[in-house]
Amino acid sequence: MQIAMLLYDRFTALDIVGPYEVLSRLPGAQTTFVAAQPGPITNDSRSFVLEAQDALSEVSAPDIIVVPGGPGQRALMADGELHRWLREVHEHTTWTTSVCTGSLLLAAAGLLDGRRATSHWLALEELAALGALVTPERVVRDGKLMSAAGVSAGIDMALALAAELAGPEVAQAIQLGIEYDPQPPFDAGSPSSAPAAIVDAMRANSRFVLEGA
Amino acid sequence: MQIAMLLYDRFTALDIVGPYEVLSRLPGAQTTFVAAQPGPITNDSRSFVLEAQDALSEVSAPDIIVVPGGPGQRALMADGELHRWLREVHEHTTWTTSVCTGSLLLAAAGLLDGRRATSHWLALEELAALGALVTPERVVRDGKLMSAAGVSAGIDMALALAAELAGPEVAQAIQLGIEYDPQPPFDAGSPSSAPAAIVDAMRANSRFVLEGA
Repeated sequence: MQIAMLLYDRFTALDIVGPYEVLSRLPGAQTTFVAAQPGPITNDSRSFVLEAQDALSEVSAPDIIVVPGGPGQRALMADGELHRWLREVHEHTTWTTSVCTGSLLLAAAGLLDGRRATSHWLALEELAALGALVTPERVVRDGKLMSAAGVSAGIDMALALAAELAGPEVAQAIQLGIEYDPQPPFDAGSPSSAPAAIVDAMRANSRFVLEGA
Repeated sequence: MQIAMLLYDRFTALDIVGPYEVLSRLPGAQTTFVAAQPGPITNDSRSFVLEAQDALSEVSAPDIIVVPGGPGQRALMADGELHRWLREVHEHTTWTTSVCTGSLLLAAAGLLDGRRATSHWLALEELAALGALVTPERVVRDGKLMSAAGVSAGIDMALALAAELAGPEVAQAIQLGIEYDPQPPFDAGSPSSAPAAIVDAMRANSRFVLEGA
């Protein structure tokens, strides 16, 4: 079972590492980090350099793809090699998945037209404008498409995916192995629970939050 | 504020990337991944290669250190360069922190004698044997020492640390930015909640779980 984890310049680290940590523990999983070119790929804050093992052209039939979000997504919205690759591999995937603003890339490639999907809470309007049926849940499934909300939601998505792929006992064992019994010190992880002043400030700066610009 | 994120051969990716994603968003944070030698460092499952930017010898006075766990911890329990570095930088840190079996490294270096600390649930007995006062909570603080339970607990720890360093509003804004509103599909993230058969199987294979051997 080949799992292709997409990387691109200015991706968000936890978007892809959360799902990686879960999915790489599945029996028979063979993960590979893919990018336009193999080699070091730098994240959004320019302080995290992860190696891409394969070029997109070298991974033509992955079983699963995971598309992370990050400010660098913005530069990839125009049609091009990445969109062609997404469309081609999607023909044969078992699951096509995204985390955070990764869903904007799937949508821009034409894969979410009329399909239920989600994204970072600040990107839901844009996702809808790109043709998806926005569903503001943490993990959204529509057929073989699965999308997660912002950044950390990829962990929850990957556990749901693990259960689909290998059964609930395997998913639970992975959850126990990574001791995923979350106890955030604050209840501020969604716009419905966070203090209004913080939500408002982030909405006012959404371009900075999403694009680092 | 310099934050040194330790890497070593066969670390666990999420142990360090969870805290990184939170702490790198702090105002004034300057993170660096450090290892015995700079360059590519490979994780436990050999499919994730992260770049260390600095050698230990190049980072002599970090404000904060984060020590991840992972099967490679086993090879670093004997006194040597890493232990000396941990002891030296600990003299001047504002916070000395660990995730998962990273606490075994702090303990082996002599930094947890009689101090409250935690680790991966399968490693608590060993942590106690090394002289720490084991406290089976998800995030444990003792003075400027902060330790987290297994793997994913580093996210919770980092949010608590963010609040200490920059106040609760900043921590909440980071939590909202990474949309950390966890909704695991199962309640199986701790030995007290997971199905007994899964806990028992993992205990019986604890050496494999912790050491990949």
